[in-house]
Amino acid sequence: MAFSEVRPADIEKKSFEIINDELAEMGKTVDPRYEHIVKRCIHTSADFEYADSLYFSEDVDSKISEAIRNGAFIVTDTTMAQSGINKKTIEFFGGRVLCFIGDKSVAEEAKERGMTRSFISMERASKLDRPVIVAVGNAPTALASIVRLHEEGKFDPVAVIGVPVGFVNVVEAKEMLMDTDIPCIVAKGRKGGSNIAACIINAIQYKIRREA
Amino acid sequence: MAFSEVRPADIEKKSFEIINDELAEMGKTVDPRYEHIVKRCIHTSADFEYADSLYFSEDVDSKISEAIRNGAFIVTDTTMAQSGINKKTIEFFGGRVLCFIGDKSVAEEAKERGMTRSFISMERASKLDRPVIVAVGNAPTALASIVRLHEEGKFDPVAVIGVPVGFVNVVEAKEMLMDTDIPCIVAKGRKGGSNIAACIINAIQYKIRREA
Repeated sequence: MAFSEVRPADIEKKSFEIINDELAEMGKTVDPRYEHIVKRCIHTSADFEYADSLYFSEDVDSKISEAIRNGAFIVTDTTMAQSGINKKTIEFFGGRVLCFIGDKSVAEEAKERGMTRSFISMERASKLDRPVIVAVGNAPTALASIVRLHEEGKFDPVAVIGVPVGFVNVVEAKEMLMDTDIPCIVAKGRKGGSNIAACIINAIQYKIRREA
Repeated sequence: MAFSEVRPADIEKKSFEIINDELAEMGKTVDPRYEHIVKRCIHTSADFEYADSLYFSEDVDSKISEAIRNGAFIVTDTTMAQSGINKKTIEFFGGRVLCFIGDKSVAEEAKERGMTRSFISMERASKLDRPVIVAVGNAPTALASIVRLHEEGKFDPVAVIGVPVGFVNVVEAKEMLMDTDIPCIVAKGRKGGSNIAACIINAIQYKIRREA
């Protein structure tokens, strides 16, 4: 096969056409309310399993959009997810994209208190004086920490993107999150990742831009 | 299912045990020379397709290890891949992990010369006064640029990790790379990503550490 001469601006368009065609061939339908998110996850991973595995709590998409428009902060569990999130729209509305996991003081506090760095990171997220959307692509412990802080009445995030990837405690942590009343988007099963966490936030902000 | 009490240090060990068990159940065998890489890709993605899709040119693993031990620089196509690479071992040996794609001067030069930012980034990589390993998880154009610079006698990287993800030009760019004599690791097909690019570099450096 030859490298085709597609203008960079058209590559994304063509990619989504291919995704649409193949979804149709597979007989898969996607909820139109969430198709911008589902298809971007497929675009990011080339994995059509996301057509079936994504869970959305009621109105979670509009809750996140409204919060971003009001300058909410995004907190991620890894610098990789932080790095993958497009900052433009978030910062235009006064928000920021933060990640505490690499902070020296988080490591120190975790050691002192005998807690995980994930827990301390999520505790820091809970203390921000802004509405917070948490995007978790790696650490099931981060999800478990959010649920614990929420149960203790200490953390009430706008929403949680719960898409850690892996083999141990990942499925369980996602189920714990879905059992709460925290608005959430979850990739059920083992799959997910920092790239998926970032692309879900990006899908939502690109829709805000298109509608602006 | 309950969240199991596994010590963070044991989670990775347990994950690899699960991966081994499931590979055996599926009747899949992995080349022992590359199993640290193949299994880490599965660990990073929870996707067993990597047991079949990874291509390794002859001795590529030892070429990369030796270069890292000699202080080679790693250049990535995205800040996300840069961010996912563990810097410890690389920097211990005098290397660095670089990414030029976000540099203002790259954007300016790309505009002036009518080239893509990916091309200019790879051209910068070719001009470093160190042996370079390139890790491409996103842009097929980056792979095509490397091949072009190589054909013009301007770039001779130690190795290329060619694992961009996507639907347009991705398969073709990977085939172009495999048709050259550049040492490479490629995820054949559409799948890959910045996380996979980073984890392949990490798998190699963790092996260096275990053997140290």
